[in-house]
Amino acid sequence: MERTLISELGAHVDKKVLVQGWVDVRRDQGKMIFFDFRDRSGKVQGVVLPKSEAIESAKEVRNEFVVSVEATVNKRPEKNIKADVQNGDIELEIHVITVLSRAEVPFELEAEINLDTYLDHQPYTLRSEKARNIFKTQSTIIEAFREALREEDFIEFQAPALVGGDAEGGAAAFKVDYYYDQKAYLATSPQLYKQIMVVVFERVFSTPKVFRGEKHATTRHLSEYSSMDFEMGFIKDHTDVMAVLERAMRKIVEKTGLEVALPERIPVLTLREAQAALGVSTDEPDLEPEHERALCEWALKEHKSDFVFVTHYPMSKRPFYTYEDENNLGYSKSFDLLFRGLEISTGGQRIHNLESLIERAKAKGLDPEKFKFYLEAFKVGMPPHGGSATGLERLTARLLNIANVKEATLFPRDLNRIDTLLSE
Amino acid sequence: MERTLISELGAHVDKKVLVQGWVDVRRDQGKMIFFDFRDRSGKVQGVVLPKSEAIESAKEVRNEFVVSVEATVNKRPEKNIKADVQNGDIELEIHVITVLSRAEVPFELEAEINLDTYLDHQPYTLRSEKARNIFKTQSTIIEAFREALREEDFIEFQAPALVGGDAEGGAAAFKVDYYYDQKAYLATSPQLYKQIMVVVFERVFSTPKVFRGEKHATTRHLSEYSSMDFEMGFIKDHTDVMAVLERAMRKIVEKTGLEVALPERIPVLTLREAQAALGVSTDEPDLEPEHERALCEWALKEHKSDFVFVTHYPMSKRPFYTYEDENNLGYSKSFDLLFRGLEISTGGQRIHNLESLIERAKAKGLDPEKFKFYLEAFKVGMPPHGGSATGLERLTARLLNIANVKEATLFPRDLNRIDTLLSE
Repeated sequence: MERTLISELGAHVDKKVLVQGWVDVRRDQGKMIFFDFRDRSGKVQGVVLPKSEAIESAKEVRNEFVVSVEATVNKRPEKNIKADVQNGDIELEIHVITVLSRAEVPFELEAEINLDTYLDHQPYTLRSEKARNIFKTQSTIIEAFREALREEDFIEFQAPALVGGDAEGGAAAFKVDYYYDQKAYLATSPQLYKQIMVVVFERVFSTPKVFRGEKHATTRHLSEYSSMDFEMGFIKDHTDVMAVLERAMRKIVEKTGLEVALPERIPVLTLREAQAALGVSTDEPDLEPEHERALCEWALKEHKSDFVFVTHYPMSKRPFYTYEDENNLGYSKSFDLLFRGLEISTGGQRIHNLESLIERAKAKGLDPEKFKFYLEAFKVGMPPHGGSATGLERLTARLLNIANVKEATLFPRDLNRIDTLLSE
Repeated sequence: MERTLISELGAHVDKKVLVQGWVDVRRDQGKMIFFDFRDRSGKVQGVVLPKSEAIESAKEVRNEFVVSVEATVNKRPEKNIKADVQNGDIELEIHVITVLSRAEVPFELEAEINLDTYLDHQPYTLRSEKARNIFKTQSTIIEAFREALREEDFIEFQAPALVGGDAEGGAAAFKVDYYYDQKAYLATSPQLYKQIMVVVFERVFSTPKVFRGEKHATTRHLSEYSSMDFEMGFIKDHTDVMAVLERAMRKIVEKTGLEVALPERIPVLTLREAQAALGVSTDEPDLEPEHERALCEWALKEHKSDFVFVTHYPMSKRPFYTYEDENNLGYSKSFDLLFRGLEISTGGQRIHNLESLIERAKAKGLDPEKFKFYLEAFKVGMPPHGGSATGLERLTARLLNIANVKEATLFPRDLNRIDTLLSE
């Protein structure tokens, strides 16, 4: 017999079906044994009647066993219908239960556990409804991001993870033993590659893993995370980039179906305006985490928006390729996107003139000889361009109001954690 | 004025437009200067007439300069229409040319160059029509793969690249300097993680970068490549996995629009049948590259198929988690998918019973203590399952009949090559 998914059982009333899945709950009532079964499509209740041939195996079975069940789909009597439950109007009358896999669980799935225990037992704890919801949402987010970009003529590319040369420019990079005595590094961002790709396709996106060896142990840092990156040519300035990012966010909110305060236009403030609105010093080059939270509260109150753009960070705080605002010297055509208290995206316009770029690199103490490959893109005709990067796990966490980004990360790696898995 | 894409110019006849892009070709005919411009949407011809104000700047401009052009779209006279060329019925009468970026190219784009020169100058050479076609196709392939899987209820997950513990099981893994004195490794496959995810979602896919430190310098090996992976629960055997992979390949062929010999069903042979068909020794545990090529020629001739499945490799040649065929002891429920002479996918059913798995691991000299995290998935109720992995770059290369997989890889890394890029 072919397997019937639990979500499709309603179309099989009075018929025999084969259901395969997990025992979600087993309730032994002596003469009769009740089950809730679970598969990827949902849940259904089943019963083993006293005279059923399945009664012996039903006694052996425990929660989380993997089973194959032959049963008849019965309509429940009117008075027993549970209108608010999936399959609340039907019940399986079980004829045969075959155990496909036994199970022994470390603790009850709904038990209160701390984050470390949760993470240590992810092959089990990821099975909870909450965890499944997080990672289904994450799957939807990344797909919605790609869809939004494809709709605007962006082409996907596979950014490299291994890079030669040392990453002296910014975030700490992990070092890799490459062949023989060579050293390589793990990419901290696909930034330079996506700029190169602008000269090829004008508009590109990539969703690579990136790696940060920073020694932070916080609720928002990860050693490895998924970056949703895009880069586009022929922009007038950073606001063209912000418009694409805003449309991508709109698509993500729409596809996840979650409640988000997202007005017609996301409010935009310069860093100095933001600091003034918060009544904090307008000398600081960046927002502290508590300022980011306060600014988001302000945006929600004043603009009914969970998102807020902050633009014009000082040049000194931004990477060498950042474009300076000619009307506001010392400040860059850059932005961060904050969402529910956290920076989730960063971006801006980039320098496209080769000489200016080399000059800025040198001013930051970088040796242009070390990135000749990148500079070639600027020699062969680079249009004005800019782009943005959004952290998938941070966005997932804030969309679902999860305090620690590690809970929105599959198998998170950080200062204190990397699971030990033989890899083959 | 808003930019008009070159592909949309036909709708603007007799109107003024702003075109932005690259100078594809410039032809100075003395009094008049002709241009072909190029943007992401296509090409168009333009002319600077002798009395145009643009004549001075037109003299400065060279091939590959990035320009912004104000022009009028003129219909060509009937006799000058080039029916087989994009925009062959229109011409731009140029009023203003503004240079956005100058360009100096290392050699002509269509020059005959060897692969090393091609790779050394990718920021330039990727711009050729051939290269752009390769990576547009690659973008289509990975999206078609995801779409095929999503249509069958598979959920995407982000497989980790950094793994703890040593990868003694199979392919050589690159070692990473993790925090302090800790060592980590780069994942050689998402295999164990996708199996873990089966107990969460039943059906999952992932398209991660994977890393192989093998010391091969061939036309088909890369140190870093994109793996299109899926894994599914509740299978009867490996043929369920092959059916999903076959449907994904059909979708990829359809979406790329390329000519591929793909019959109703891809032919399937056991390894021993394949060896017999080729008239080679049926004692060998695997096919040599030249046998893979010969088998594909056979499949094309006998079954009009560019694809052929080979199943039942000896257990000794497969990883510890491989499922043995109870009716064919010593042989596994595994498969490779060959396409136009090259192995592009591998897969099979996996062991789902905890005790059998531990026994097999020990028999292969592996220490189960080192992958307790993985084994927990088998303790908490693992269904019968299997999956497959396909190399994106290999598939791209064979689809486009490119001899060397490096040409179908953006920024390929191998034994002799890793570009030196400062990464920020």
